[in-house]
Amino acid sequence: MLNEYALHCGKVRSEIRELFEIGRVKKQQFGEENVYDFSLGNPSVPPPKEVKDAFLDALETQSALSVHGYTTAAGSNDCRQAVAEDLQERYGEDLNFNNFYMTCGATAALVSCIRAFVTDENSEVIVIAPYFPEYRIFVEGCGAKLAVVSPDYKDFQVNFPEFEKRINANTRAIIINTPNNPSGAMYSEKTLEHMAAILSKKSREFGHPIFLISDEPYRELVYGDRRAPFIPQFYDNTVICYSYSKSLSMPGDRIGYVCVPSRVEDWEDVMAAVAGAARGAGYVCAPAIMQQVIKRCAKVRPDIAIYEANRNLLYNELTKMGYECVKPDGAFYLFVKAPNGNSQEFSRMAQDENLLIVSADQFGCPGYMRISYCVDKEMIVRSLPAFRTLMEKCK
Amino acid sequence: MLNEYALHCGKVRSEIRELFEIGRVKKQQFGEENVYDFSLGNPSVPPPKEVKDAFLDALETQSALSVHGYTTAAGSNDCRQAVAEDLQERYGEDLNFNNFYMTCGATAALVSCIRAFVTDENSEVIVIAPYFPEYRIFVEGCGAKLAVVSPDYKDFQVNFPEFEKRINANTRAIIINTPNNPSGAMYSEKTLEHMAAILSKKSREFGHPIFLISDEPYRELVYGDRRAPFIPQFYDNTVICYSYSKSLSMPGDRIGYVCVPSRVEDWEDVMAAVAGAARGAGYVCAPAIMQQVIKRCAKVRPDIAIYEANRNLLYNELTKMGYECVKPDGAFYLFVKAPNGNSQEFSRMAQDENLLIVSADQFGCPGYMRISYCVDKEMIVRSLPAFRTLMEKCK
Repeated sequence: MLNEYALHCGKVRSEIRELFEIGRVKKQQFGEENVYDFSLGNPSVPPPKEVKDAFLDALETQSALSVHGYTTAAGSNDCRQAVAEDLQERYGEDLNFNNFYMTCGATAALVSCIRAFVTDENSEVIVIAPYFPEYRIFVEGCGAKLAVVSPDYKDFQVNFPEFEKRINANTRAIIINTPNNPSGAMYSEKTLEHMAAILSKKSREFGHPIFLISDEPYRELVYGDRRAPFIPQFYDNTVICYSYSKSLSMPGDRIGYVCVPSRVEDWEDVMAAVAGAARGAGYVCAPAIMQQVIKRCAKVRPDIAIYEANRNLLYNELTKMGYECVKPDGAFYLFVKAPNGNSQEFSRMAQDENLLIVSADQFGCPGYMRISYCVDKEMIVRSLPAFRTLMEKCK
Repeated sequence: MLNEYALHCGKVRSEIRELFEIGRVKKQQFGEENVYDFSLGNPSVPPPKEVKDAFLDALETQSALSVHGYTTAAGSNDCRQAVAEDLQERYGEDLNFNNFYMTCGATAALVSCIRAFVTDENSEVIVIAPYFPEYRIFVEGCGAKLAVVSPDYKDFQVNFPEFEKRINANTRAIIINTPNNPSGAMYSEKTLEHMAAILSKKSREFGHPIFLISDEPYRELVYGDRRAPFIPQFYDNTVICYSYSKSLSMPGDRIGYVCVPSRVEDWEDVMAAVAGAARGAGYVCAPAIMQQVIKRCAKVRPDIAIYEANRNLLYNELTKMGYECVKPDGAFYLFVKAPNGNSQEFSRMAQDENLLIVSADQFGCPGYMRISYCVDKEMIVRSLPAFRTLMEKCK
């Protein structure tokens, strides 16, 4: 007699993890260098030097009781203030430590926000395909329903006619993720303005705010001259879920935050509900030493030259072979159309070439493949003949 | 339009935190040395030297990508194996890494277990007063009901007639905490045998296992010749929620585990349900560098001489003044009867003497006070006249 949903979530592993395990076995069989594993979104660039310096500085210069002691649930004031000041400088938004709640990564932030916004078992949370599959677990785990808007295949912006139709009186929140995992696309200003207009209209229509949850682990991973915007400046009722996992290459350290800007309607209540939801989920405080690190590294940016070089290499080579994909603006994923039109089958065919790429069916985007290019450039070079062979087989 | 329960939990602060805040203000007003703050269960003994060494060793000798990278959700095999081997050595229980799921402290472990065992909105979880008030938030946050067994005032074991009556067909689990916060009492072997007999009988009667959740942050903090037993050896269907917060003085680091021994009925399913519940609560993996630390420190024990000296001083002095309390076996709390019979009022009277002690009403044990003696011995000495004054006032 166990909770059925928990048992299901514990037994059914994510397909990405499955593929990663297949890769581990193949590497033992064929040798590390003959397997081309593009399955995981695990940073391949080490953390900036400042991260290690910050750990050492905290351990060597502060009292052990303060480094390893509890902070307040929302996080230490100086860590939160450092994060606030950095964002204020970059985006001109009026922010201070009270607008921040430090969390164990973006997942804890997302779960806390979803729990705060879901009011009853009829509540719905909308995601826009392609979307990160764990969103479903988080939303259904709160007892709410996930509503999926099908992809805009042209350029992976938003399928607005369907988006508007999906919103109803039970809609509590929308989760967006830009730059996007898995598409690598970034929402344009036009997209964000259009989305804000619809959400404002629908909030008025239904007489309550519909919250926008902006999941931003890839905010700092944007290529060329573009930069990720500050989403609350498009739509007031936006909360940000941030993670340092990708930007500072510290996914195991579990540190991120919820930002509730003061422009959010009743923002202090929203922050209290997020805090209460986090409390109920057993989050006592974000790891204290990580807060010490972030306090010291709030202004540190990743060196994304390696990812950008990987993107260019893979994009240029695959499109030359005839693969179809949109050139990604950010994150570290190339989103490619399966040349045979069936992404699950194509993923299996790729396995026969020792090439591990993820079918996007689970992201709500059948027919597409996610190729994580947070890998060694040399592996990309070695993998190209396998991509060529696969394309030949599909012709 | 926010989740009401989350908003409530975010707005109503714990009374312990309130008292701590009062203390902060008083210290500014009267000077640090003139306020006697016994409110928090925050370790006052720094972490053992091995903890810092372990951090430095991980940071200096391992690749940054591995130190800061994701581990599998359950935790790295070598960390879990180190923990398993330590417990196997100490208790002769057959354990290996598969029996462990590393978590962000005992709270994450508790929430994951409660979510795994709660099957529907009629589910009940029993706690035995005095109990840690956050249990209510965790249980109600899962949509289940909390059933409280009133205290056994004689020696803070278990009020068995009431315990047995509280168990019904909806009972899914019991949470125990021994050594206990706030009473400092440890359950005797007789108590555990009696509890196991009742739980076995009731499991048979209702045709499903009733799980025992043993919350064990104070397992290593036991005084004199006694030692904390391994609870699953009394009752098979026991899962352990452990934290290194108190034993290694690292509460801010958020590291602990769930242990599901192989003697638990369908233990692999139970472990899967715990893992699935953790996934749904947004726990991706326990902080990776903390797992590195625990791998290296699994056999490190705290030096509890300071706490024991504090216990003896405070116990001897207060009983001499006429205060009534049971001598604590473990943890770092002295549980004292309010001499005026009203613990909330006594806590307020104590505040007037700049003495901060917690009323146990919130622990389900009215009429008692919790005095946390994880403090400087000098502060205890300075506080004694205030205790004396209070006793005089109650006469």
